[in-house]
This record gives sequence, C-alpha cells and structure tokens, in this order.
Amino acid sequence: MKLLVLNGPNLNLLGDREPGIYGHESLADIEAACREAATALGVDVEFAQSNHEGALVDALHAARKDCAGVVLNAGAYTHSSIALRDAISATGLPVVELHLSNTHARERFRHHSMIAAVSVGVIAGFGAAGYPLALQALVTHLGGSGKP
Amino acid sequence: MKLLVLNGPNLNLLGDREPGIYGHESLADIEAACREAATALGVDVEFAQSNHEGALVDALHAARKDCAGVVLNAGAYTHSSIALRDAISATGLPVVELHLSNTHARERFRHHSMIAAVSVGVIAGFGAAGYPLALQALVTHLGGSGKP
Amino acid sequence: MKLLVLNGPNLNLLGDREPGIYGHESLADIEAACREAATALGVDVEFAQSNHEGALVDALHAARKDCAGVVLNAGAYTHSSIALRDAISATGLPVVELHLSNTHARERFRHHSMIAAVSVGVIAGFGAAGYPLALQALVTHLGGSGKP
Amino acid sequence: MKLLVLNGPNLNLLGDREPGIYGHESLADIEAACREAATALGVDVEFAQSNHEGALVDALHAARKDCAGVVLNAGAYTHSSIALRDAISATGLPVVELHLSNTHARERFRHHSMIAAVSVGVIAGFGAAGYPLALQALVTHLGGSGKP
Amino acid sequence: MKLLVLNGPNLNLLGDREPGIYGHESLADIEAACREAATALGVDVEFAQSNHEGALVDALHAARKDCAGVVLNAGAYTHSSIALRDAISATGLPVVELHLSNTHARERFRHHSMIAAVSVGVIAGFGAAGYPLALQALVTHLGGSGKP
Amino acid sequence: MKLLVLNGPNLNLLGDREPGIYGHESLADIEAACREAATALGVDVEFAQSNHEGALVDALHAARKDCAGVVLNAGAYTHSSIALRDAISATGLPVVELHLSNTHARERFRHHSMIAAVSVGVIAGFGAAGYPLALQALVTHLGGSGKP
Amino acid sequence: MKLLVLNGPNLNLLGDREPGIYGHESLADIEAACREAATALGVDVEFAQSNHEGALVDALHAARKDCAGVVLNAGAYTHSSIALRDAISATGLPVVELHLSNTHARERFRHHSMIAAVSVGVIAGFGAAGYPLALQALVTHLGGSGKP
Amino acid sequence: MKLLVLNGPNLNLLGDREPGIYGHESLADIEAACREAATALGVDVEFAQSNHEGALVDALHAARKDCAGVVLNAGAYTHSSIALRDAISATGLPVVELHLSNTHARERFRHHSMIAAVSVGVIAGFGAAGYPLALQALVTHLGGSGKP
Amino acid sequence: MKLLVLNGPNLNLLGDREPGIYGHESLADIEAACREAATALGVDVEFAQSNHEGALVDALHAARKDCAGVVLNAGAYTHSSIALRDAISATGLPVVELHLSNTHARERFRHHSMIAAVSVGVIAGFGAAGYPLALQALVTHLGGSGKP
Amino acid sequence: MKLLVLNGPNLNLLGDREPGIYGHESLADIEAACREAATALGVDVEFAQSNHEGALVDALHAARKDCAGVVLNAGAYTHSSIALRDAISATGLPVVELHLSNTHARERFRHHSMIAAVSVGVIAGFGAAGYPLALQALVTHLGGSGKP
Amino acid sequence: MKLLVLNGPNLNLLGDREPGIYGHESLADIEAACREAATALGVDVEFAQSNHEGALVDALHAARKDCAGVVLNAGAYTHSSIALRDAISATGLPVVELHLSNTHARERFRHHSMIAAVSVGVIAGFGAAGYPLALQALVTHLGGSGKP
Amino acid sequence: MKLLVLNGPNLNLLGDREPGIYGHESLADIEAACREAATALGVDVEFAQSNHEGALVDALHAARKDCAGVVLNAGAYTHSSIALRDAISATGLPVVELHLSNTHARERFRHHSMIAAVSVGVIAGFGAAGYPLALQALVTHLGGSGKP
Repeated sequence: MKLLVLNGPNLNLLGDREPGIYGHESLADIEAACREAATALGVDVEFAQSNHEGALVDALHAARKDCAGVVLNAGAYTHSSIALRDAISATGLPVVELHLSNTHARERFRHHSMIAAVSVGVIAGFGAAGYPLALQALVTHLGGSGKP
Repeated sequence: MKLLVLNGPNLNLLGDREPGIYGHESLADIEAACREAATALGVDVEFAQSNHEGALVDALHAARKDCAGVVLNAGAYTHSSIALRDAISATGLPVVELHLSNTHARERFRHHSMIAAVSVGVIAGFGAAGYPLALQALVTHLGGSGKP
Repeated sequence: MKLLVLNGPNLNLLGDREPGIYGHESLADIEAACREAATALGVDVEFAQSNHEGALVDALHAARKDCAGVVLNAGAYTHSSIALRDAISATGLPVVELHLSNTHARERFRHHSMIAAVSVGVIAGFGAAGYPLALQALVTHLGGSGKP
Repeated sequence: MKLLVLNGPNLNLLGDREPGIYGHESLADIEAACREAATALGVDVEFAQSNHEGALVDALHAARKDCAGVVLNAGAYTHSSIALRDAISATGLPVVELHLSNTHARERFRHHSMIAAVSVGVIAGFGAAGYPLALQALVTHLGGSGKP
Repeated sequence: MKLLVLNGPNLNLLGDREPGIYGHESLADIEAACREAATALGVDVEFAQSNHEGALVDALHAARKDCAGVVLNAGAYTHSSIALRDAISATGLPVVELHLSNTHARERFRHHSMIAAVSVGVIAGFGAAGYPLALQALVTHLGGSGKP
Repeated sequence: MKLLVLNGPNLNLLGDREPGIYGHESLADIEAACREAATALGVDVEFAQSNHEGALVDALHAARKDCAGVVLNAGAYTHSSIALRDAISATGLPVVELHLSNTHARERFRHHSMIAAVSVGVIAGFGAAGYPLALQALVTHLGGSGKP
Repeated sequence: MKLLVLNGPNLNLLGDREPGIYGHESLADIEAACREAATALGVDVEFAQSNHEGALVDALHAARKDCAGVVLNAGAYTHSSIALRDAISATGLPVVELHLSNTHARERFRHHSMIAAVSVGVIAGFGAAGYPLALQALVTHLGGSGKP
Repeated sequence: MKLLVLNGPNLNLLGDREPGIYGHESLADIEAACREAATALGVDVEFAQSNHEGALVDALHAARKDCAGVVLNAGAYTHSSIALRDAISATGLPVVELHLSNTHARERFRHHSMIAAVSVGVIAGFGAAGYPLALQALVTHLGGSGKP
Repeated sequence: MKLLVLNGPNLNLLGDREPGIYGHESLADIEAACREAATALGVDVEFAQSNHEGALVDALHAARKDCAGVVLNAGAYTHSSIALRDAISATGLPVVELHLSNTHARERFRHHSMIAAVSVGVIAGFGAAGYPLALQALVTHLGGSGKP
Repeated sequence: MKLLVLNGPNLNLLGDREPGIYGHESLADIEAACREAATALGVDVEFAQSNHEGALVDALHAARKDCAGVVLNAGAYTHSSIALRDAISATGLPVVELHLSNTHARERFRHHSMIAAVSVGVIAGFGAAGYPLALQALVTHLGGSGKP
Repeated sequence: MKLLVLNGPNLNLLGDREPGIYGHESLADIEAACREAATALGVDVEFAQSNHEGALVDALHAARKDCAGVVLNAGAYTHSSIALRDAISATGLPVVELHLSNTHARERFRHHSMIAAVSVGVIAGFGAAGYPLALQALVTHLGGSGKP
Repeated sequence: MKLLVLNGPNLNLLGDREPGIYGHESLADIEAACREAATALGVDVEFAQSNHEGALVDALHAARKDCAGVVLNAGAYTHSSIALRDAISATGLPVVELHLSNTHARERFRHHSMIAAVSVGVIAGFGAAGYPLALQALVTHLGGSGKP
C-alpha cells in the first residue's frame, strides 16, 4: 500500500521560513520522518511538493493510479482552491488535511478550508510532528491498526 | 472561422469523475461531439484542457491570434479567477460560459461566476449536450445562422 | 410531445422595451422562431405570457396535464418567486430557465435565481436566439436527439 | 362566529405535490377536517385558496367584514410578502400562521416569515393535522374554551 | 397632458387602516385632492388602485399609450418588485415615487426601494398631502411651471 | 405511553414574570392543564423544569428510557444551544418545540431556533394554551387520533 | 412664522459643481426661489450654508429659538452624521429632508440617511425645484394650507 | 505526568448516538483505548465527561493542579463557549481540541471553534481513533517522543 | 438595603489568571473591597460566584427576594446568555454590568453584550477598582447619594 | 494634577434635550458636580464642550500640555470618529469614555464605539452621576486612591 | 503651476505622535522636503493642515482658484468623509491620495478609502518619503516629465 | 544592489489590452523605463512576468538569493493569492505593491489586496509612470536617497 504526502506552496522553504510559526524542521526532515513512520506502519510513501495549484491537481490525479490515500498540506491553497476540492472528489482518494500551524488561531482568512468538506479529517497545529500522526490516521482509516 | 473549446481543472477526468454530477461521457466524447457540431455549423474547432489557471490564461491569449470566439468551461476557476476574467477582457474574445452541471443548484460557492460579467452568455446544466449548444450560440452571436 | 414556452412580466413589451438590453425582436417573432424550431425538432409547442406571478403558477399547474417540459423565462420573478420555485417542484415538470440578457452581467439583484435549484439548466445572454436553443436542450433532456 | 381558512400558492396541488414533504391529504381532505373541527368548536368556517398574492390580500380585506379571525397558510408568500403583512395589520384581524412542513427545518429562505410579526402565533410541521389545531388556537385566542 | 396616479396594495383601505401611520383620509379623499391639484396645474389625471403586482405592471404598460407621467405609490411592492422596476424602465415613463409615511423611519425592510433607481424622485412622509406635491413635481419635471 | 413536558430557564417564574409577554398563568397552572389534557388524550405526562442547559440535556437523555416524545419549551436556550439540538438528535425522541410568546414577533435574536431543524414542529404565541395543543400534536404525530 | 433652509457641504458650489447631477442653478438662485415661495406661503425664511458638520449642528440649535421648522439639505453629512440626527431630536424641530438628486439612484453609500428616522419626510430628485416643494410640505405639516 | 481527557455534552451516549456520524464505539471503549495508549506513552490519564458547560469549566480549573495537559472534546460547546475558552487561557493548560466527526464537513454552525485560538492544535474526523492520536500529539507537545 | 455582587465563570481564578488582562487582585480581595465600600455607602452586600450559567440564573431569581439591586460581572456569559438577560427582565432587578477589562478593546466577540439592553449601565476597564464604583452607581440609581 | 472633562455635540442642550433619555441636569449642573468631585479628589478640572469634531481633536491636542487625563463624552462622534481615536493615540492621554445613557441599550448604531479600543475604560448609563464616577476612576487609574 | 499639499487631522502632531507608525519627521520637515521637491520639479507648492473636516473641504474649494492639483493626506477622514469625496468631485481637481503608513496593513476600518474612487491614484506606506513621490506623480499626471 | 520587478497575469498584453484602463505603453516600454530609472538610482534591475500564480511564487523564492527588494504588480492575483502573501512573508523580501490603475476606483473585488498587509507600501493609479516611482520608493526604503 502506497500513500502520497503532498505539500503545497511555500512549504519548500520550511525551516528557513518564519520558524516562529512553522518550526525549524525542513521539508527534507519531514520527508525523513514520514519515511520512518511509513516503515513502522508497513506502508510505502511518496513525497511531493509544488507551488503550483495546477501541479497539485495533477499530482492528485496521478495518485489515484497507485496510491491508497493522501496526506495533503495544501498550504495557502487550502483556503481558496475549489480545483483541489474537486480533484479530491473526482479521484475519490481518502485525504487527511494537514497544517503545521493551528490555522484557526491565525488570521481570519485561514479559518475556512475549502477542502475540509471532502477530506476524511484534519490534523493541525503540531508542526512537523503532525505528518507521522496523519499517516497513522490515514492507515487506520484505510483499515490498518495505525499502531506503529 | 475557428473557435476554441477550452476546458479547465479536473475535466480531464470526465466520465470517471462523479458521473452522478458530471455524466458518463469522457472529454474525448465531448471533443468528438464538438467536432461533429462544428462541421455541421461550418466552422473549425480547437480543443484544449488544463488544470493550471495560468495555462488557461495563456490559451486565451494565444486564441486571440486565430480564433473568433471561445466556449469556456473554466470548471472550479469559474468561481474565483480574476485572472481569467481579465484575460477575457484583455483579449476581447467573445466567450460562452459553459457548465456541465447546473452550478446554481449546487453548493453556494458555485453560484458566483467571476467570468459571467465579461461573457456573452451562459449555458449550464445540460451535461455534454451543452457543448454543441454553446457552439451554436457562439456562431449565432458571431453572425452565423447557428442552424446546423 | 408538447412543450410549454412560458414568459413572465414585461416580456409582452419586447422589441419596444430597452432594445439595447433585450434586442429588437418582439414576442411574436420569438413565438414564430419557437414554432419553427419545434417543427424541426418534431414537437408541439404552446406559448404563453403573463405579468402576474399567480398566473404563471397557474400556467405551470395546467401544463402538468399535457406538457412534457417547460422553457421558462420568468423575467423579474426569477429572482424572488418562491411560489414559482414551489410550482416547479410540485408539478415535477422539467424546466429550462431562460434569460434574454446575461443576468449575471447586470445588477447584483439579478444574479440570484430562485428557480435555478429546481431547474434542469439555464441558457442566458443570447437574446431571442436562446429560445430555440432551450427547446433543443429540453428535447435532449427528455431523451430526444435534440438535433433539428 | 365565522373563521376564514386561507391557503396560498401551490396548496391546490396538495396530495399530489411532493408527499414526502407535504403529506398525502388533499386540500379537500383538509377542508373536511376543518369543517369537522369547526363544528366541534361551535364556529363557522370559510375556506379559500389562491395562487395570486393580490387575491390573498383581497380575501383578507373581504374577511374583515364577516370573519372573526383567520388561519393563514400563505405558502411561498410567507417568506416575502410585505403586502400580506400590511393586509393583516390593515384589517386588524387575528391571524394564526400555519405551515404543513416545519419551515425552519428546510431551506434557509423558508426560515424568515414576513407575517409572523403581525400574527398571533404559528403552528408548523404537523401536516394536515395542524389545521384543526390552528382553529382551536384561534378560538381560544378569541376567548372560547378551544376545547372541542 | 394626462398623468396617472397609481396606488398599490392595501391603499384601498386608507382612512380605516392604521390611521396613526397612514392618516385619516380615504383614497377617495386623495383622489379628490389630486383632481383639484390637477385642475390647478392644467393637467388631466387618471386614478387607479390594485392589490395585484401584475395589475400594477399592466397599468403602467397601458399608461405609456396616453399618459405623460406617473405618480406611483407602490405600497408594499416598493420594496421587492423587480417587475414594477422593469415595467418603469420598459415603458420609459417618468415616475414620481410616493409614500404616505416616511418609510425610512419605519422597519428596516421598508428602507430599500426597488423602484427608486428608475424613478425621477421621491416624496415621502407627508401623508395625503404628498399627492398634490408629487403632481406638482411631476409637472415641473415635464417642463411645466409646477406652480398651481 | 408517557410524554415529557420539559421547560427551560426562567419559566419557573411564570405568572410573576413580565405577564405582558408571558401571561398570568404560573408553571403549576400549566402543569395542571397538561395533566388534564393528557388524561383526555389517554397518555401519561411527566413535567420538569431547569435553568441549567446541562440539566435539560440530562433530562432528554433520561427521557429516552421511558418517554415516547417530548414537548420542549427550551426558553432562552432555544436560540443558541447546540447541546440541546444534539441531545434531540442523539436520543431520537420526537420533540414538539413550544414557545409561550410569538418569538418571531420579538427581538431578532429570538428569530432563530437552534432546535427547530431536529424537531417535529413548532407551536408558538398562544401562551399557556399552547401546551395542551402541543400534547395533542405530539400524540397525533405518534399515531394517536389527537382528539381529546 | 420663520423657517430655516439649511444647506450642507459643497452646496456653495452649486451651478458650477457637476451640473449633470446637481443642475445648473446656483445656491443664490435657490435662495431666491425659496424667498419667492415663502412669500407666496406667507412665511419668513432664513437661509444658511456651511461645509462644517459642527456649524450645521450649531445652526439647528440656534434655530430652535425663532424657527418653526427646517428644510435641511445635509448633503454628504446626511449619510453619516449622528450629530445632526441628535441635533434634530434634541431641538425637537420638524425637519424636511431634501436632496437635489435622487440619492437612492446613486452610489450605495448614499442610500442610507442617518437623519430620515427623525425627519418628517423627504423630498429628493427634483433638483432646485425641490426647495419650494419642501417649504410647502413643511408649512402643511405645521398646519398651514401649503397652497401658495 | 498525568493528562486529562475531558468530554462534553451528549458524548455519554456514544455508540448509541447516531453511529453514522459518531461511530459504534462507546465512551467506555474510548476510555479503554486512551488508557492503553497512555500506558504505551508512559503517562497517566484521567477521564471525565459532563453535559454541563460549567462542570467542564470546573474540571479544567481542577486539572491545573495535577495535569500537564488536556485532550478536550467539548462537543457542542466547542462552537459557542467563551467560558471554556477563557478557562483554557486562565489555567494555561495546553489543550488538544478533538472531534470525532470532521466538523468542517458538517453544518455551518459547526465550522467555527471558539476554543481553537487558545488550543495547541486540533484533530478531527477520525472517530474514536482520534483520542490516542491526540494523546500522542499532546505528549509530543509536552516534550516527549510521542512514539508509543 | 442589600445588594448582590454576582460573578460569573473563571472569576474564581482572579489574581492567578492572566494578570496582564485581569489584574493581580483575587476575588477575595475584591470581596473585601466591596464590603468596605458597602459599609461606607451604608448598605449590605452579598457576594457569589459560579462557573455555571444556570447557577447564575438561579442566583438572580433568589436575589429578587431580598436584594435591591445587583452588580453583575457575567464574564464570558455576558456575550451570549439570553437566559441571564431574561432572568434580569423576569426579576425586574436593577443590574449594573461590570467588566474588569475594557471588553470593547479586546476580541470582537467580546464587543457585544447580551445583557446591556436590560441593565442600568455599564462600568468596564478599571479592574478591581470597578466594583466599588459599581456599588456607588447602583446606590445612586436606587436613590441614595452614592457618596461614600 | 489637572484633568479635562470634554463634551461633544449636542451636550450643550442637556436638561432641555430629551430628558427621558439624557436626564434633567444641565451641562452647568454637571460642571458643578465635577468641580465638587475634583475638589474631594484633590485634583483640578477643566471643562469644555464643542459641537465640532475638529474642535474636540484640537482640545485633546491642547490637553497633552497640561492635563494628566481626560473624561470624554464624545456624544455622537463616539460611534464614527477615527479622528478622535487617532487624537487619543497621538496624545497618549489616558481617557475614560463616558455616556449619559446606556448606549448599548439604544439603537444599533450606538453600540459601536470607535474610541473604546484606545480608552482606559467606559462608564455608561448613569446619567449625570457618571461624571464624578469617571473622575474617580481616572484618578485611581493615575495612581491616586480614588476615594473622595 | 501651483500644487496644494493638504494634510488632515492629527498630522500636526507628526514626529511626536506614535513614531513607530508615523515616523520621526515633523510636518515642518515634510513641508521642507515638499518645497525642495517642488523646486526640482519646477512647480510652486502650498502647504496646509487642519483637524476640521469642514476646513479641509473649504481648502479644496479655495484651491480650485489657483492650484492645478492636490496631494491630499486626509488622515482619519479618508475612511469616512463623503464631504471630502464630494469636494474633490465638485472642484474637479486631480488629487493624489497619500498615507504615511500602509493603511491596508492596519485595522480593518482603515482599509476603505472614501476618496480613492475620485482620486488619480494613491501612494501609501513610505512615510515622509511619500510626499515628494506624490508631487512627482501629480506633475507627471498633469503632463510634466515628473523627473526632478 | 539588484531589485526585481515582477509582473503578474495579463500584463504581457499591455499596450494592446484595454488602453482606456491600462494605458498605451507595452511591458517592453515599462522595462525600458525601469532600466533607465534603475541606472539613475544606481541599482540593477531584473524584470519578469508570468500568468501562473505558482511561477510568481517561484520567482519570489528565487529572488531572495540575489535581490534586495521587489516591485510587484501581481495583477489579478493581488486580490486572492494567499500563496503570494505567504511567499512574501516567507522570503522576508521588502515588496512595493504596484498597480497601473487605481484599483480602489474600480470593481469592488479589486478593493481588497491580499498582499498589502505584508508589503512596505503601495503605489497605484499612475499607469506606467508608477514603476520608476516604485523603484525610487524601494531604494529609499532600503536606505538609499531615492533621488535619481
């Protein structure tokens, strides 16, 4: 079973970018933690990032061929992208919505998620530690024990 | 006279994607129907699709060189893209806005069209059958009889 | 198979009335075009107009006896009439919502349609040419080829 | 003492119309139940229906000559008719607002009643059974015992 | 030169109806005052009232044949009728909007006028005395001196 | 068959409390009237009141053990309590929403009911007389004749 | 009996200022017309203008000493000045609200009048011709015949 | 280190209550899973539930004496309770907000969380499986490895 | 003459709780200051606090038996509790609304007070020093000199 | 130590002006009470009033030279004046916001205070008695005992 | 060619006033910089400031006699003054709107400019350095090279 | 020191595109003017344009390596792109927001800038002439004299 961990705009700058909000770990650190968690959970993991809304849609389309589910940190596109929402519905993939920061404790425009209504659930506010949790949650949702 | 039929995000998945809402015909089926209708109407037709907002803007820019008008199913970008709206105004191309589903009978965020104000008119809710109707309407608008 | 073409308030003044917005064709011209299109499509067509909301409701009630579907240009009542919306639901008739002008490109209060949610689809912005298109769309929806 | 039971748009289709929402009893069944209840309560009852907002206003105006109160199911006009509201105020008749369905459990636009503020009270959601209850409530309001 | 004085719903009850808001003069009294004022201004006046929105639309349509302008007290329909607004635009008649009460000092839903944007001007709050003032204003607008 | 009549905050002060709005009958008077009506309807009735939102939730939970339905005057909590709404859904009990006053004719914040969407129906504005009506309505809903 | 005609900001530029909206007559022309109308009505008239909100408040305060009523064109302050509204309430003077243009046919922010709720009535849209009408209306309100 | 798992209104009915939304596990099942997870994480866990907003506030106050953090499923009070929000701020306890269902995919009034702004993060939509994840997240936040 | 000083949720934590916002004085300090002020004003004072909305309602009900007025710091319930508002109206007790912090200078949801409309007045922003001021204001309102 | 008591528009009419809302005491009475309270508190007091927003801004600017704080009853300007708000911020003077009436119990547009966010606190609803309370509160804020 | 640099409320305190937001330069410093820039651009410059909205209107009226354009920092009045907006329209003067701070990065009520719609353009956020830029922009707009 | 001048969607059509709004100068003309201004200011300038939101994000990311600041005309993305806003925050680059037209004088959806809150300042409405001004402003902000 393969899972996709898909990251949206500006997440390539993690570690450098406003560490007070997003923490000190880089996207490479997060990828490593995801791979470690995936191994513990007995699943494969694919890792991707793009600043382009269309590329994220393309990635979701591609994932329906060989992935059982997606951990999606859509970043800024979370709040406005109907295209991503439609892509989730269209592919029928189970998606766990993930945010590094607690978006509901930030600016008002970050309170609304356009993708929540078509996602399985959301994990937000735990920084890099949220990714392994999201993989666990996704595996549990897919019928695994979710216990590493 | 050449017309562009331009399709937005997730429409590449048509047929597979939520057939209860979008119908069973694929984008290839629609392209075939458009080409048949175009022949009947005595016009050429060009057919394109992208999941990228910027690529749709690029396509409209390119169209002003050799197309007389556009049938545009902007999909999810319909509801938010000021860039597409500005591209329509900037190119001066007559655009028929098309939707497979009756967007006004769906979620509230699909009720607003950012491009309606700069389009000739709208055809929505007739599934794949809307494309030939839109070509007819566009040809009529351009001064043809619109009778196949 | 008989179809009703039902027109709402002020449409009796067509041709005279603000031709910049509504075009130069009179309601009689439109009726003629509808009859011609109906013949080509192999259906009967009935034609009615009233300035009274209640009379339009009555007409929809009457139509369920002998009409297979309705092309409805509800004019000003489009935007506020729950009675018409309920009449469409109550009769169960398939309705194609039609507007001469592109209502979404006009005043804000014309952007909302109270009847869209219970209609098959909408055709707007093509002036008098919209009526034959609407008949085609309706016949297609009812299972015909919709090709004149 | 005579009471008016006045019904608004589309209620003439009751029984036929969307029985999942409005129940299986026809308006004639309701009239019979009202007459039975009226007899038990020792009052006369008049029964009327129209799809025309203006006709409902006219009926209220006429009622102030010989009716002591009104049970009003204004249907779709409940939510928008200032004319009906003004007619209630102008005639000074005590009005019990009635709805077959629980309007507050349906679409948002059915949550607001334009006539509630000038009505004695409201009974909603009990289907045809609401009419005899409304007559009881009106008789009690007018000083009777309201016990059949 | 003939002018139409057109009155909407519930105004037939004037004098009887909530005199604290609308005053003690009946519609007949107002008609008499209008006729007196019309004579002083050297114009003819036609007087009509209906509780039906559609009938008011019909009356405006009829007026464009022989009336130079309209004093319109649309009553409750003022606040919601797009049909009346369209009728004013469609006929091209100059209309003076009149209200007996100062609508802006009453409930919020009476603050918005759907017809103001297509009327010459408004006179509100002066009770029956507003009608002769409105006739003066209309005659002045039509190029007369407006001095009785 | 046992029914619960459950009253919310401040209703213990009835009779004393603002009789212009809530009438002169005390909660004990209402209880007596309910017991009389219940006898006539052939059902048992249980009667409770609390000023605590949590206690009302507890009471609904307890009721699902031995009550067939509930007449609920949730008072001030009507307008804001999602906990009560969830308790109604969670217990699956049929609930008739009751108000002494016509809440829709009062302050704006009393126009919205958080529990209406999960209630069978609503009776409001008839003062103490509403309770026996609500019991009748509830018995009818549960399949009884509802005729005392 | 003396009446005050009080004019607000930018009205000193009348004639020069956007004649398409405000007409070609200067404030001096309007003062002359007011004086002529006042003579015909048998009243005295005082005339003042200021661009300062505070000065308009001061003028209303002063007027309560020797004026029986006020024709107030508050210009831009109409839409926002609670101070003017309070001054009208505080002085108890009957005020006729006047506008040269039909404010409800202009930008949205001109649709709300902060002073309407404490004014006798409003006259708007008749240009300079509105002033004599307002004086007539005010004299009638004060018990005079209002017939010049 | 002791952690509090605190549950709000109607959660005592879990298992019975709308299993389509909330799952088939009872609160006792969840408590057992929490205790198992706590053991694996090397922490103590205290478990409490109340339908009373005030009792939840009291429980948070008590927790600051001997608990290092809280997993809080505030249920219906999530969306409206400023008292709970203030209790979280006042005690300074780190709180993980938990929901069984994906609240953002449900009714609009469940989209807003009053406590999110003062919580560490949120886990929602994973049913009973969310509790062990929340404990892991809380332990990680408190400086533990969070790896069972 | 006895006065009640009633405190709502989380105020039991004063001194400990966010001293930057609420100050360093405990509720016991405030009670002492109130008793001192009451002695100076020649009145008795009763002091109570609860985190339960229902308990605050109960306390107001009890107070109408032997208290002449209430200083109410309803804390978080200020902004949402219709039950408290109704309790104030129902008991008819004069209430001075008190807040330690300047609520209008804080988050938007603290700007609205549900109880202000039925209170005598409000004192906010002066920390613990506000209590003696509130007692003075209440005594003055009750006809005393209010001078300690 | 000198304090400024600054009063805004229409407060010069106090006593005369709507005594039902504002009480029977004149501004001179209030000045006398302020001077008496100031003497008791051991401070100097300066007293000013203007109907001009700009003059109130000027007065605040002047006050920063020799006043330690301000009691500001900004009247109507409270609700809209960003200039006054900026003047308070710019001068850095501690300001106690004062209102004679309980503004939150009046019209909606009086519920918002533009200056609250930059004021120390607010005292409202106690009529003329609020001024000495405000001086006490201000002296306490400035470090005095505030006990006369 | 003479240009007016007009400054609104509280700008006389510049340098002293909240330097974190508005910078350390005084209005005199800015005047000096403007005069230097004017010399370089070959134009005359007039410089004025007032805290009175009416005085700013008067200044614009006066400017139309001898100034070719205006740099207007309307300060707090920017966000609410329809009078200033009307003065700009009435005088027909080209106006460059200037702000020291980036108003769109501050409180929400500073995001709307009432004068933007009638201004040539806006320069905001560059502190005192914005004035010479605004003069350059204005000179360019008036047909000069704008190169110092 | 190198500065980036970055242009968003549809700006490649400048000159051709709606010259009434955007002027007659092409993007190449603007680039030339920027290069000339940069030379005068003693800085290097890089020039880029894309119709893709993601490409603009990529460009900002790249710029943090060798550019000291950015002049950003984000075009249509200005009003909706949280991704661009986050990119500005993430890179920490000082950005001057630029618009050819006065966006606040156009459609309502162009009044909000998503990037203003993280930009240094804004220059809008001066057409192509705004670019050199923006470079000057940026150089001044970076500590240069800003005088060419």
